[in-house]
Amino acid sequence: MLKGYEWKGKEDKNVVRAEIKEFRNTLLGQQQQLRDAKLPVIVLIEGWAAAGKGSLIKELISEIDPRFYSVVSPTIVPETQERYPFLYQYVKAIPQNGKITFLDSGWMEGAIQKFLRHEITKEEFRRRIRQVNEFERQLRDGGYLVLKLFVHIEKDEQFERLRKLSESHDTEWRVNNDDLWQHREYKRFLEAYDDFMDRTDDVIPWHILDGSRRKSAVRDAMKLLVETIDRGLRDGRYVGEPFEEEFPLIEMPRLADVDLSPTIDDKEYKAQLKKLQDKLSALHNVIYRKKIPVILCYEGWDAAGKGGNIRRVAYPLDPRGFDVHPIASPLPHELNRQYLWRFWTRLPRTGHICIFDRTWYGRVMVERLEGFCSDRDWKRAYNEINEFERALTDWGAVVLKFWIHIDQDTQLARFTDRQNTPEKQWKITDEDWRNREKWPQYEEAIDEMLAKTSTKNAPWHIIESNDKKYARIRTLKIIVKALEKACDEHFERMMD
Amino acid sequence: MLKGYEWKGKEDKNVVRAEIKEFRNTLLGQQQQLRDAKLPVIVLIEGWAAAGKGSLIKELISEIDPRFYSVVSPTIVPETQERYPFLYQYVKAIPQNGKITFLDSGWMEGAIQKFLRHEITKEEFRRRIRQVNEFERQLRDGGYLVLKLFVHIEKDEQFERLRKLSESHDTEWRVNNDDLWQHREYKRFLEAYDDFMDRTDDVIPWHILDGSRRKSAVRDAMKLLVETIDRGLRDGRYVGEPFEEEFPLIEMPRLADVDLSPTIDDKEYKAQLKKLQDKLSALHNVIYRKKIPVILCYEGWDAAGKGGNIRRVAYPLDPRGFDVHPIASPLPHELNRQYLWRFWTRLPRTGHICIFDRTWYGRVMVERLEGFCSDRDWKRAYNEINEFERALTDWGAVVLKFWIHIDQDTQLARFTDRQNTPEKQWKITDEDWRNREKWPQYEEAIDEMLAKTSTKNAPWHIIESNDKKYARIRTLKIIVKALEKACDEHFERMMD
Repeated sequence: MLKGYEWKGKEDKNVVRAEIKEFRNTLLGQQQQLRDAKLPVIVLIEGWAAAGKGSLIKELISEIDPRFYSVVSPTIVPETQERYPFLYQYVKAIPQNGKITFLDSGWMEGAIQKFLRHEITKEEFRRRIRQVNEFERQLRDGGYLVLKLFVHIEKDEQFERLRKLSESHDTEWRVNNDDLWQHREYKRFLEAYDDFMDRTDDVIPWHILDGSRRKSAVRDAMKLLVETIDRGLRDGRYVGEPFEEEFPLIEMPRLADVDLSPTIDDKEYKAQLKKLQDKLSALHNVIYRKKIPVILCYEGWDAAGKGGNIRRVAYPLDPRGFDVHPIASPLPHELNRQYLWRFWTRLPRTGHICIFDRTWYGRVMVERLEGFCSDRDWKRAYNEINEFERALTDWGAVVLKFWIHIDQDTQLARFTDRQNTPEKQWKITDEDWRNREKWPQYEEAIDEMLAKTSTKNAPWHIIESNDKKYARIRTLKIIVKALEKACDEHFERMMD
Repeated sequence: MLKGYEWKGKEDKNVVRAEIKEFRNTLLGQQQQLRDAKLPVIVLIEGWAAAGKGSLIKELISEIDPRFYSVVSPTIVPETQERYPFLYQYVKAIPQNGKITFLDSGWMEGAIQKFLRHEITKEEFRRRIRQVNEFERQLRDGGYLVLKLFVHIEKDEQFERLRKLSESHDTEWRVNNDDLWQHREYKRFLEAYDDFMDRTDDVIPWHILDGSRRKSAVRDAMKLLVETIDRGLRDGRYVGEPFEEEFPLIEMPRLADVDLSPTIDDKEYKAQLKKLQDKLSALHNVIYRKKIPVILCYEGWDAAGKGGNIRRVAYPLDPRGFDVHPIASPLPHELNRQYLWRFWTRLPRTGHICIFDRTWYGRVMVERLEGFCSDRDWKRAYNEINEFERALTDWGAVVLKFWIHIDQDTQLARFTDRQNTPEKQWKITDEDWRNREKWPQYEEAIDEMLAKTSTKNAPWHIIESNDKKYARIRTLKIIVKALEKACDEHFERMMD
């Protein structure tokens, strides 16, 4: 990219200044239209150390009302101390509808620094490039306007700027070891930037700015931003087409074919429960020590016994090392972002366990059936979810998904019991009864979901829960087995 | 406290087990009532390393629905790396109405460790004890049920437990250097715990549990929790009485007496603006290097020119080092917590500047006048806010508060202009017109606010803004002067 770029000659300062003023005025008007059109904008500003990314952002935001933007500067933590997946902090920063996020360097710098430091392997670097492409496509398909800029300066210019910053006591802190290292390794960085931009130019194209001419770079960036917003305002919110990448899938039975008769007697239940909980408790220590993140996903019919099942799994765990996330309808600030945002931001740190009581699969169940998203949205979600979960297992997470299953008669019996038992009444709402009416539609949606998202890396398990005790033992067994396997494989993985 | 405590004799295991079972059942029923009564609960569990805090929490939560509680384990960062005020992470953890937060050690351990490590002075330690008392009172007065437990074990017992944990590969990570240090310094810790508990026992009393008898400790903790919740359910949500501590105040003029005639001519404005912005830009570097946090608070009449004023202050700042927080009506998860929570959680890190576009003073203006809180609530708020701001300046923050002031005629002219200019129409709403009707009531409330909260450490400045340009220059001058002073005094402060 950089190689093929043709630099402009010197420009008339006054002309550039006038152009900036004009674009700034346009931007001033656009912010209100953005808000009305509820379009979210991400401006990624990558580039060399001391190329002027910060002062470029300063100019871009100078006339924007602070209610409409935020500036985020992600930090690059050494891989050994990194507690979250690669994309975590970038996803976390995405704006709400109608607002703009400026990223002062982002996923390109993050991936490249770790690769050039030999903190991640070439394979992992490639995986991150793939994740970036998936992330950018998911943003675009979810209606985000994304502008990607790279501020370029030559090696000599960088030298001069770093030297100047280092000379003053009050600016020397701006030059850190990473910057000096980048300067020494300018050539390797150049190749890496080129390679990265080449591989991530299809979904959302890169734009290169000439950092050696500050005013022209500001003008160019403003022009691109104004055009990006204009295009968004003209074409309206983009909704991506459904598509299907081939993921290695595990074949699942249809719900109707699941035998729900298994039971367990009380004595056996108590003995097994104790044994499995003791094992899980011991495993939690190992998980913590080996820093393996664990994500347990619960979905199931209303009154299937999710809550009690989760409590039996949580009981032996150290409360300092796990979280349960009950997922209800999204809050306004969640609803106004890409639908996976509220799950990304709830991910556990390495070595921690988190349990989702309902999950991102709401997209292809309730949101699909209640019309909370468009057909394209939920049809696209199968693949997006598979990508999301692959990013998690690539990171090293154990991802297990449980469909807690009962039949309609059992549900009716439990609903009636809840209705008639004062302490349980809070658990039953009119909505539960309404959902029950839609059992056939839900069953169809769930069958499709199980068929399309039970990947080898993040499989579904249908848990027969007409007998809740049987269901708890079965879930615990699956968890214990998976965690044992993960602890065993951890060493191999580290050597990979 | 610990000295005077009388330990119980050995108890019949089966009796204790039966009691636990009964309390657990009661708790199961209470969670729903808590939710209906919208009462938030904080259970602070302090105690010796290896005293069994974690397993105690495990028992307490075992039957509670995960939707109703969360467990938080604050970390104790070395003071030199601490980027937020002392109470920050504890305030951050407070639950929403109807929910329970279990704190696995909290503000006592945090304060004591730093003091015994000589990371903070005795004076600072005392200040933190005062802050804790204020925080606990604010929680209580804001309707929180707070239960404070200390799990005690003798030195010999601690030795045995630490030894046992260290023996297994899978549990040795549970014993860290702090734990070993605490064991060696058992006597100093004992004195410090005693002293701290003595000094923080008035607002919310401490309860000491015998950690050497695990089951009895669980039973005692459950009993206390059940009783605390019962009391809350019986007496209803507590609303604290107004009170006034004497803060050193700066006398403020009444708004009606402020001369709004000052203006600035255009040439002078441009020259001064450039000069002040350059100074501010340079100061931002020093602020960053010296790690001084800066909090700028904007309040003012609608259309007084807050937005444009803020933009002129923000323009020279490095976008990586400041945030603007526009404050609108609270979101549901904010409304369901103590009203200062949403401001605590938006505080800047050390070395960063944050600008609040509207602030916590909404409590004594719009919330007072629109009846969004009770009379007691807003009357109590003056003192609570003074305490909050003192915690900020104790931390080393520069806190400046601006009332951007105009007269009614100027507001009318600007409203009319907004209404008639298409690009400005989004800035004017029906609510603005409605608020305008209430000018006299607002003026009375603002006069009271200025009189009661212009403390020496966090003063108010009334900014004459009939001429917006004059207002901008005046604000910039105040900021520049205050930051210069803070940078100068920083060294003295460090030596304190």
